[in-house]
Amino acid sequence: MTYCVGMVINEGIIMAADTRTNAGVDHVATFPKLFTFENTGERVIIIATSGNLATAQRVISVLRQQIARSEEVNLHTCDSMFQVAELAGEILLASEDHYRAHNPMSAVDFSSNLLVGGQIIGQPPEMYHIYPEGNFIRTSTDTPFFQIGESKYGKPILDRIITVATPLNQAMKCALISFDSTMHSNLSVGMPIDIVIYRMDSLEAKIERLEQDDRYFNRLAKAWGGGLRNLFDQLP
Amino acid sequence: MTYCVGMVINEGIIMAADTRTNAGVDHVATFPKLFTFENTGERVIIIATSGNLATAQRVISVLRQQIARSEEVNLHTCDSMFQVAELAGEILLASEDHYRAHNPMSAVDFSSNLLVGGQIIGQPPEMYHIYPEGNFIRTSTDTPFFQIGESKYGKPILDRIITVATPLNQAMKCALISFDSTMHSNLSVGMPIDIVIYRMDSLEAKIERLEQDDRYFNRLAKAWGGGLRNLFDQLP
Repeated sequence: MTYCVGMVINEGIIMAADTRTNAGVDHVATFPKLFTFENTGERVIIIATSGNLATAQRVISVLRQQIARSEEVNLHTCDSMFQVAELAGEILLASEDHYRAHNPMSAVDFSSNLLVGGQIIGQPPEMYHIYPEGNFIRTSTDTPFFQIGESKYGKPILDRIITVATPLNQAMKCALISFDSTMHSNLSVGMPIDIVIYRMDSLEAKIERLEQDDRYFNRLAKAWGGGLRNLFDQLP
Repeated sequence: MTYCVGMVINEGIIMAADTRTNAGVDHVATFPKLFTFENTGERVIIIATSGNLATAQRVISVLRQQIARSEEVNLHTCDSMFQVAELAGEILLASEDHYRAHNPMSAVDFSSNLLVGGQIIGQPPEMYHIYPEGNFIRTSTDTPFFQIGESKYGKPILDRIITVATPLNQAMKCALISFDSTMHSNLSVGMPIDIVIYRMDSLEAKIERLEQDDRYFNRLAKAWGGGLRNLFDQLP
């Protein structure tokens, strides 16, 4: 399983993904599911993936290859985030169809979901949720966050806290609490967590990895868990 | 959609269910999903249902009819909660098969899930989750609660708070917070909430209904929501 969350707020973009993959409970591994495609100073594109790992990796590889080969259409030549989403959606659908066509009798689910966020110089930051069908929706001021993968356990805290006015550091904290809730309730979502904290107009992004023993994350999770129990005890 | 939660703790049993049903978003109604089968002073049996409403109502009707007709096997003659679960499981499976047999080409999902809790005099309280297949599992001291229906949003708080040692009033409070979280994130789960708070060995149970304007529930939801935001703001 997987859990990814992405937000577009006034101060920038937060995107985070866990790194646990499993094919059955006896085949558990760690793979990155968060990727950046940067052209520093001009554009930043961040992609998070859930679903079939081979499909997701194929999408990322094709997108990288298009850039490396300087193909006419690639993530660095798209002139809007909408075009970026269209390109990613096309490649996603083509990747799924590729495996389905070769395995007409297979019951394997070859589908993936993507979150595609980023900013191109002179344009506002945007984020898209790209469905396995290749179509997509964009965040809005009403709904500034998307989740893919095991999304339900971590949704209540996002629903309560996140608006476009939430400061970047608070949004990051909220994303991590959302991960903590999800990992408490679903074993197949696990550390380390990859996170990008993108400040509006900076046009540079770095993936930070929070390992199992990350001191801040553990302090946060402990303060949240203890605080919840205290709050619960004080309720009428 | 539906949300039901049931717990067996040292001090007794809590069972609660919302009352919203929907067949598509344009056919929303209020139906009870929590039922008691009492033989005061001798046994209390409480059943919560999710899934296909016609199937769930059929199960309850057949169980009531068996008692009314004083059939040899009915909920009041079963000599253990295990037998109660077996009887409910058989009727559930028979009800699903009944509708499936009459609609071989239908895509309608006729399946339901049940939570069956209760106590028979001289025996400990027990609770079973009965699957659409008619088989079932029982709560344990390790896992004292079950959920059916839209279970994920409300699970994190149960995971953090509920143990068999949780006092009955605290468990009730936790169940209501679990409902509040679920209703925040899923429109198809809604008030009123029906709840049974069963004190161990009392052998009587009453369904209490919390209406939309219930003062305690609204105070609790407000204190929880406000407290969460305060706690969040205070985190490192």
